[in-house]
Amino acid sequence: MSPALHFSKGLDDVLVGRSTISWVGGETGDLVLRGFDIRDLVPGVPYESVVHLLLRGDPPDSDPSPEVVAALGAARAVPPGLEHVVDALPPALPPLEALRTIVSSLGDGSYGYPPTPEEGLRLIARTPVLLARYVRRSRGLSPIAPRPELSHAANYLWMLRGVDPEPSTVRALEGYLVLLADHGMNASTFALCVAISTQSDLVSAATAALATLKGPLHGGAPARVSEMLDAIGRPENAGAWIDARLARREVLFGFGHRAYKTDDPRGVILHELARTVAAPELLALAEEVERIALAALRRARPTARIYTNVEYYSAVVLEAIGLSRELFTPTFAVARTAGWTAHALEQAAENRLIRPDVEYVGAPKGRRWPRALSGR
Amino acid sequence: MSPALHFSKGLDDVLVGRSTISWVGGETGDLVLRGFDIRDLVPGVPYESVVHLLLRGDPPDSDPSPEVVAALGAARAVPPGLEHVVDALPPALPPLEALRTIVSSLGDGSYGYPPTPEEGLRLIARTPVLLARYVRRSRGLSPIAPRPELSHAANYLWMLRGVDPEPSTVRALEGYLVLLADHGMNASTFALCVAISTQSDLVSAATAALATLKGPLHGGAPARVSEMLDAIGRPENAGAWIDARLARREVLFGFGHRAYKTDDPRGVILHELARTVAAPELLALAEEVERIALAALRRARPTARIYTNVEYYSAVVLEAIGLSRELFTPTFAVARTAGWTAHALEQAAENRLIRPDVEYVGAPKGRRWPRALSGR
Repeated sequence: MSPALHFSKGLDDVLVGRSTISWVGGETGDLVLRGFDIRDLVPGVPYESVVHLLLRGDPPDSDPSPEVVAALGAARAVPPGLEHVVDALPPALPPLEALRTIVSSLGDGSYGYPPTPEEGLRLIARTPVLLARYVRRSRGLSPIAPRPELSHAANYLWMLRGVDPEPSTVRALEGYLVLLADHGMNASTFALCVAISTQSDLVSAATAALATLKGPLHGGAPARVSEMLDAIGRPENAGAWIDARLARREVLFGFGHRAYKTDDPRGVILHELARTVAAPELLALAEEVERIALAALRRARPTARIYTNVEYYSAVVLEAIGLSRELFTPTFAVARTAGWTAHALEQAAENRLIRPDVEYVGAPKGRRWPRALSGR
Repeated sequence: MSPALHFSKGLDDVLVGRSTISWVGGETGDLVLRGFDIRDLVPGVPYESVVHLLLRGDPPDSDPSPEVVAALGAARAVPPGLEHVVDALPPALPPLEALRTIVSSLGDGSYGYPPTPEEGLRLIARTPVLLARYVRRSRGLSPIAPRPELSHAANYLWMLRGVDPEPSTVRALEGYLVLLADHGMNASTFALCVAISTQSDLVSAATAALATLKGPLHGGAPARVSEMLDAIGRPENAGAWIDARLARREVLFGFGHRAYKTDDPRGVILHELARTVAAPELLALAEEVERIALAALRRARPTARIYTNVEYYSAVVLEAIGLSRELFTPTFAVARTAGWTAHALEQAAENRLIRPDVEYVGAPKGRRWPRALSGR
């Protein structure tokens, strides 16, 4: 191992570049998108305008961004060949696996290098459209055509259900989408950047990101928060349930984050959004479990700085909106296609192949194959 | 930016872990798989035995590995649901995009964390089977059923063509598959490790790897070598063509590698394999173009250490085997599923979330949205 090389298994202490897209203030509890504090964007700024901000760098001239509204509306009409792929997927495929497969199938050879904002807008538009189509087909329901005049959030709910969604539900989902639209460098965005760095295309890179988002250490855990709340059932059960779980050295879902050593600002806002849509019983349960869990975790590890992470109230909000749990992580992906696109554009603008090395600690060169080789 | 952080855009100088799988000796021109010099494996050691070596760490008790032969043969029979997805893909999808989509669709919820060697053997077996099915369907030909008694290389050619392949062709393809089976840490393997590090599954991670392999800076370039040789046409045209191209500051495909600063041992062996299968005219053209290109590149950049890379004679061998060019990179993937599996197992055995950071250089926090926000 050359002394000039830097060893870092998790890359915790490595900066893989410079970015103007978003800043995660782990010590101060900040998330800033192109200079805008996330607390100043939610509620209020439409997702379409945040897409504009992320892709173009500045807010649009009016809200919601006319350019993004037009592009998303137009791209909701999907070529029949894409629908055919969706309809051929086995209905038992989990929605996240289906979504990854669907996004991969968008790669018809027309996506090249470097990626473009227009490709990104197409990707952002079609992700919820094709996901909703799959979800309905997999449940034996007929697909529902998109409506170009609806907002991104409203159209997603419309295509899942075929009824006009409640304004409060749309507002909560819209807030969720903005909150989750980007988050600095993270594992899925990094996988996307690695793909782009080989001069691969946006659809390929988004597929790599989706493959990475699936892991419970990244985007795959919010459904487990809901399952945990189900298992606890009532606020008065929380103490005993949590103590027993920690005694078995099992994880409590929704707490702790690699970056944040204080409250995640997204979690705080999601908690506020939850108050506007969640049933009182669900909200009371979530708040009591949070209180007891944090106290127990902090007793168990007094020096660790453990806070509620974004997944906790994500689960409460998505549950309150009425999304099924297997749609939690796919809906995270629906939000994040905006940030993925922005990072793909930024990576390509000043590209360098991302290719680390490993230290070889295996058998030294010189082993002999134990038998005569037939082909020589 | 904290002084404790290490800045590295391409991660050239970063070791992301320790590995016992393979060693790339960039200065000495080495590739070692679990202690075995690649030159001692090709020709002669069956791909199945190298799969065994990569997944299990040691050679099998006999060649070809009975365990791997049995597993691959059994997994070639594919559930009808998977075939249905393959058959629904638009025939215009390039084979590499189709393969990525097909591999993604394998994720039926049964692949979990941590990955297992058995999952890997299924992935390795099914990649060429489903790829060959797609290729025939997309050409309007009926699919050909796999034959469990054939070697991995022979079955791939059989399923593409429906005729018993020539022994020399099988030998050349088998050598290619072993040579490309693993290559330390590289961009696609790294994308796979990033995915696994979130506790995502093997199918997801292989999908991320395929998305990354596509880029011409990684696995996407060998077809361009063939196109370059086509464009040159005859050995006597090589000098003028190459000079004109370099004068336009355009790339010559098949030369230069991030790791190797001497001859890539795989290229040297592929050159030998090419002599056993390539038409004399193709071989003579390739050798003359290589000679002139290297001389021209070294004149243009006397201090750079530029050598022929693995893609150059990969293209010649795959062309000589009779594979269409759009199958070059998918066939690279067929070989690499072995190494990807080995790295996924190794990453999971001592896992840590791979999550680097970026330096934020965008607008400072505090921008104000230019309009009153409707939702507040």
